[in-house]
Amino acid sequence: MKICRFEKYEKDFYGVLDGDDISVIAGQPYEQISLTGEHVKLGDVRLLAPTVPKNIVAVGLNYRKHAEEIGMPLVEEPLIFSKFVSSIINPFEKIVKPDVCKQLDYEAELAIVIGKKCSKVKKEDAKSYILGFTCMNDVTARDLQDMTKQWARCKGFDTFSPFGPWIETEADGDNLHLQAVLNGRVVQDDTTADFIFDTAALVEYISGFMTLYPGDIITTGTPGGIGPMKSGDEIKVVIEGIGELVNYVK
Amino acid sequence: MKICRFEKYEKDFYGVLDGDDISVIAGQPYEQISLTGEHVKLGDVRLLAPTVPKNIVAVGLNYRKHAEEIGMPLVEEPLIFSKFVSSIINPFEKIVKPDVCKQLDYEAELAIVIGKKCSKVKKEDAKSYILGFTCMNDVTARDLQDMTKQWARCKGFDTFSPFGPWIETEADGDNLHLQAVLNGRVVQDDTTADFIFDTAALVEYISGFMTLYPGDIITTGTPGGIGPMKSGDEIKVVIEGIGELVNYVK
Repeated sequence: MKICRFEKYEKDFYGVLDGDDISVIAGQPYEQISLTGEHVKLGDVRLLAPTVPKNIVAVGLNYRKHAEEIGMPLVEEPLIFSKFVSSIINPFEKIVKPDVCKQLDYEAELAIVIGKKCSKVKKEDAKSYILGFTCMNDVTARDLQDMTKQWARCKGFDTFSPFGPWIETEADGDNLHLQAVLNGRVVQDDTTADFIFDTAALVEYISGFMTLYPGDIITTGTPGGIGPMKSGDEIKVVIEGIGELVNYVK
Repeated sequence: MKICRFEKYEKDFYGVLDGDDISVIAGQPYEQISLTGEHVKLGDVRLLAPTVPKNIVAVGLNYRKHAEEIGMPLVEEPLIFSKFVSSIINPFEKIVKPDVCKQLDYEAELAIVIGKKCSKVKKEDAKSYILGFTCMNDVTARDLQDMTKQWARCKGFDTFSPFGPWIETEADGDNLHLQAVLNGRVVQDDTTADFIFDTAALVEYISGFMTLYPGDIITTGTPGGIGPMKSGDEIKVVIEGIGELVNYVK
């Protein structure tokens, strides 16, 4: 099932997407999905980032082959950082290159969407707290990342956290083909089967130190092939079985 | 004026505090304060962290004397990191030492409370976007901070972000006496007049890369004297003209 969030008549709704038909959800999609009976067409609404998270929890270097390629020793624990929720934008919106940034990079990532409040989840129970998966672009001011020890700013500028276009509830997060496509050219191309820490391990580790809430996002790290974007570019994060997150660079 | 947030009959309210009398605010305190006409006694309510922020933006080493003491070169730009909002607790609540943490440290800090949505604020206009100031304890798992490059986890465990007890709207944030008091003993003692970046400079810098929202917290760094807490301790952050934030260690 695909769950989307959209704006219509200046209000926000969640919906279940089937082809280009959206069945409107009454309230939120977390506890139990109840439909209002109304339908709208995908083409008639504005898609929004599919959740309103309290926190975006991000994971550093999490692809085995990529870590080996660049000669990084494999980390023993997931490297956790945070993205400010104020940096979220919607599908098709523009990523704005800050004046102070010389190199604005895309990073295609699979994002886990939390479905239930949870804390200290065991790996074997993780699936029941995951609502589904979506695409994320962990946009980064690369030159500023090299300058500062903490990544909050270089990854936290306004517009640096596009995610969507919807949540796929039936995908196997640990075996998905993932690409970044810049102006039609494939620039990142890997599979989440190469994760160092799989999605269940990440939910266990992260919920081990912080409570996760419905709609929270865990973005799982990016594979090799990261690179710069310039004004006018179209950047897509394409994940098999989920969909395409499309954004433009202003 | 002191603005508090409190729970009564299992609902949350904002109020204006005068002595031990609270005048209940209708809705939120950001746009314009309108009172419901109801009054409650401070002793009859449970104080809550005084805002519900979208983001907690934190600033590293920001006291000149302390930086000189420990031989750190003065930073040229504020060092920005983030605290997960899930780590917020209320005044008088317990800070929980995680099993994986060997050294749990207090860090007394002055917190700026944002009053209006803002972006790219000039230093000279910063005051009009600040609702007031409160006390913050930037609790840190010090041993884990030394182990990982990114601070999100060591400063983001559940219960690691107590703030309160209320917002003081009339204090001069850049000239306040600040202390940490551990079991009645003063362990940090400095003045915000020693800031490397004053409150207006921080609002300018941070709003320069991210949009700030009403209720957002900027916590301004801690002076010398940080140290460990153990189970059963009482830790207070005391700021002149604002009040005392009291928490206990579980």
